[in-house]
Amino acid sequence: MMKSDEQEIKNNLSKSAKLVDFFIEKALKNGSPDVLYKASRHLIEAGGKRLRPYLTLKSCEAVGGNPDLAIPFAAALEMLHNFTLIHDDLMDNDFMRRGIPTVHTMYGDPMAILSGDLLFAKVFEVLSRNLPQNISPSKVLSTIKITSEATVTICEGQALDIAFPDATTVTKDDYITMVGAKTSALFKACAMVGATIGGATEEQVEALGNFAWDSGIAFQITDDVLGITADEDKLGKPVGSDIREGKKTLIIIHALNHASIKDRETLLHALGSQEASHEDIENTITILKETGSIEYTRAIAEGYKQKALKTLEFLPDSQAKNDLRMILEYFVSREY
Amino acid sequence: MMKSDEQEIKNNLSKSAKLVDFFIEKALKNGSPDVLYKASRHLIEAGGKRLRPYLTLKSCEAVGGNPDLAIPFAAALEMLHNFTLIHDDLMDNDFMRRGIPTVHTMYGDPMAILSGDLLFAKVFEVLSRNLPQNISPSKVLSTIKITSEATVTICEGQALDIAFPDATTVTKDDYITMVGAKTSALFKACAMVGATIGGATEEQVEALGNFAWDSGIAFQITDDVLGITADEDKLGKPVGSDIREGKKTLIIIHALNHASIKDRETLLHALGSQEASHEDIENTITILKETGSIEYTRAIAEGYKQKALKTLEFLPDSQAKNDLRMILEYFVSREY
Repeated sequence: MMKSDEQEIKNNLSKSAKLVDFFIEKALKNGSPDVLYKASRHLIEAGGKRLRPYLTLKSCEAVGGNPDLAIPFAAALEMLHNFTLIHDDLMDNDFMRRGIPTVHTMYGDPMAILSGDLLFAKVFEVLSRNLPQNISPSKVLSTIKITSEATVTICEGQALDIAFPDATTVTKDDYITMVGAKTSALFKACAMVGATIGGATEEQVEALGNFAWDSGIAFQITDDVLGITADEDKLGKPVGSDIREGKKTLIIIHALNHASIKDRETLLHALGSQEASHEDIENTITILKETGSIEYTRAIAEGYKQKALKTLEFLPDSQAKNDLRMILEYFVSREY
Repeated sequence: MMKSDEQEIKNNLSKSAKLVDFFIEKALKNGSPDVLYKASRHLIEAGGKRLRPYLTLKSCEAVGGNPDLAIPFAAALEMLHNFTLIHDDLMDNDFMRRGIPTVHTMYGDPMAILSGDLLFAKVFEVLSRNLPQNISPSKVLSTIKITSEATVTICEGQALDIAFPDATTVTKDDYITMVGAKTSALFKACAMVGATIGGATEEQVEALGNFAWDSGIAFQITDDVLGITADEDKLGKPVGSDIREGKKTLIIIHALNHASIKDRETLLHALGSQEASHEDIENTITILKETGSIEYTRAIAEGYKQKALKTLEFLPDSQAKNDLRMILEYFVSREY
């Protein structure tokens, strides 16, 4: 991806993020008790790329809709994303995200549960309160149906993740199912909600949903790669923390299946061990490189990208369609 | 309350519970992974009185609506209630409810968080998926707005509860605010949703909402009394566990303000102490009786009951109105 393209994407993202953040801020300020609302804003205020609301706004635009009408919906979906992050961090006992301590680390477990619940409730408050002009109540109901169904899938994905004891028991197909549920379900909902508000035909809603689903998988696979290869400052958490946490990534699954017996032992020693030394992590990363697991994983991400691009061709050409193509390109070529 | 009336209420409750439970069962069966769905059904299958869905169905009927149309909505609100119970039990670290171990005790903390989240998502899935004939999408949207706003209030109430360090810092007004948020907000939503589906006027929705709000406070205050005075088998948890957990009830607040210095010390010794002996609990209960705190609390519940009854007069006479009057009577006179 060319530097100039990357800059354009970042500009686009930050433009839409501003609109969405303004809306979220309004929805989450001035609640009582203050600590609950502070906890619910904690991760949102720490940043994040706002990829999901971007997908919503661009999907609305790509079917000829006015993206301004989709802002409350995009904001609600970003709030939904943050609700899942807060609860996931607690369940996985992750301490850092977006370069700051996670919500339960800062506010304790009960407040983390509650602030997630509050965000979740606010999602549906926002969706049911903001009826844009010229959008029928039955369309708004559709967006609520899409959003709640996606959340059910997200919960199922996270439960699956918890239910798999470790990476040795997970196949590539399991991984794709899990990532589909944990990441792509929300990407898909974002695109479908945006398209619905934009007045899309059923086929367009479906196509944009499928585009976002495959994009989500490409995105998450790349995320796993970056967890190993990225610059620590940009990552917002320690490199290799996925290894220490025993996260079931495609890289690890591939490496476990392709490493020598000795290397496999080294991998298993470091995987899921909070006590793994810096050297253990370094050795593990070397093995991941030598088994070709990183290249393999990148190739899989590329495959999903190509599939997503093909689906996108269903839509008429437009600037928004081009923006969607570029964001997908960015998903797999970004450096953090 | 006469024995025959109580029997009639129990028959009514069990009749509506059957309809609602059938619907909930359908909404929560056959999900994957199985453990997630089992955890989400755990408390629901253990019983409970189904007071909230009853309020929904009767409110629908009391404004001349067909209660059958309100069944999915009543079911959704009972699921919402159970979501809050699962998360509350985890936050408060309660081990028993409805005579069985709580969800986090059985399935672990992560699965308790997730199964609550799943139920919450299912609430809105049910609300947005089941469009009864002759009910406009905009009315269904209203029920979603009512439900999500109530959940925001419930989260605020629970946060307030966590934020108060102990019973010595809580006034009667604080208590009423907290109980209003934690209990009455959902009661109110149940009545308003039922009334909305029943085709109520705005004034009727408001009146039934206010009726349910005051009823909820009378209900919760009585619940606190029963936590001290009830038969342990019927209670489903140990008598006095509210004392061991340092729960901020009106009885305790009153007793702390009216006990002698020595008795106050005895109270403070047992309050919030998991190590409090059986004798400590007995002594505490004796003090609660001697300070008149139990009678005082019952009188406050009676006051809210009277207020609720008065609000109910706004509605035209009907069997459903009578049923609502009787359930309120039951709230304050029940033995468990």
